[in-house]
Amino acid sequence: MHDDVTQIRALITGWAEAVHRGDLAGVMADHTEDLVMYDVPPPHAGIHGLAAYLASWPPFFEWQAQGAFFDIDSLDITAGTDVAYAHALLRCGTREEFAASPTLRLRLTLGLRKERGRWMVAHEHHSFPHD
Amino acid sequence: MHDDVTQIRALITGWAEAVHRGDLAGVMADHTEDLVMYDVPPPHAGIHGLAAYLASWPPFFEWQAQGAFFDIDSLDITAGTDVAYAHALLRCGTREEFAASPTLRLRLTLGLRKERGRWMVAHEHHSFPHD
Repeated sequence: MHDDVTQIRALITGWAEAVHRGDLAGVMADHTEDLVMYDVPPPHAGIHGLAAYLASWPPFFEWQAQGAFFDIDSLDITAGTDVAYAHALLRCGTREEFAASPTLRLRLTLGLRKERGRWMVAHEHHSFPHD
Repeated sequence: MHDDVTQIRALITGWAEAVHRGDLAGVMADHTEDLVMYDVPPPHAGIHGLAAYLASWPPFFEWQAQGAFFDIDSLDITAGTDVAYAHALLRCGTREEFAASPTLRLRLTLGLRKERGRWMVAHEHHSFPHD
């Protein structure tokens, strides 16, 4: 179980770095075909499937290119034998946004399954609080 | 594993009914002491521990008393041997809010651990998308 937490921590850290690089192949490398994502913007019913997940990233990369952060601030992992989840707070925003609201964090929850010995992300929930 | 999904479905359905009744004891009945909740409103760092979780509900119950819905629309559960997660979409709002935005849903992700044979909620993430 200690090994599982280590593997999942490496997976999530690598994913966040891929997001920050705008590296689409890296972002989807450890995700299941049946992934369900609740993203910050609509659709209200969520994003279903890996193709739709992929399509959701380029608009974010464009926004990020103005010089936004995407850094993990805290990460907590609960790993079982075959299913795991993790929750994290991230600095996600521009320098101007952090000046206006220094404590604002993106909240992230991930659901993972172990498939043929390998941890895969099957659910992502991204949100900002409503102040 | 089929039994686990059945148990978790009953737990989450019962929790949502307790929320809708404003039944604080029912809302916290299956939650761990070390629960972490990312709620719709701040605090930005999340709500940590069962006492803080409890304290977060009365303002919601007051708002709900004007006649708001809190109904599960879809619920998907992934249960392992000892860890599980679930994601759900809920109708959460007033009749006026649904008239203005019929597809709007509260997105909910739960993380659960099995402790001494009993499933317990250790993480909740509630959010609305930012339109």
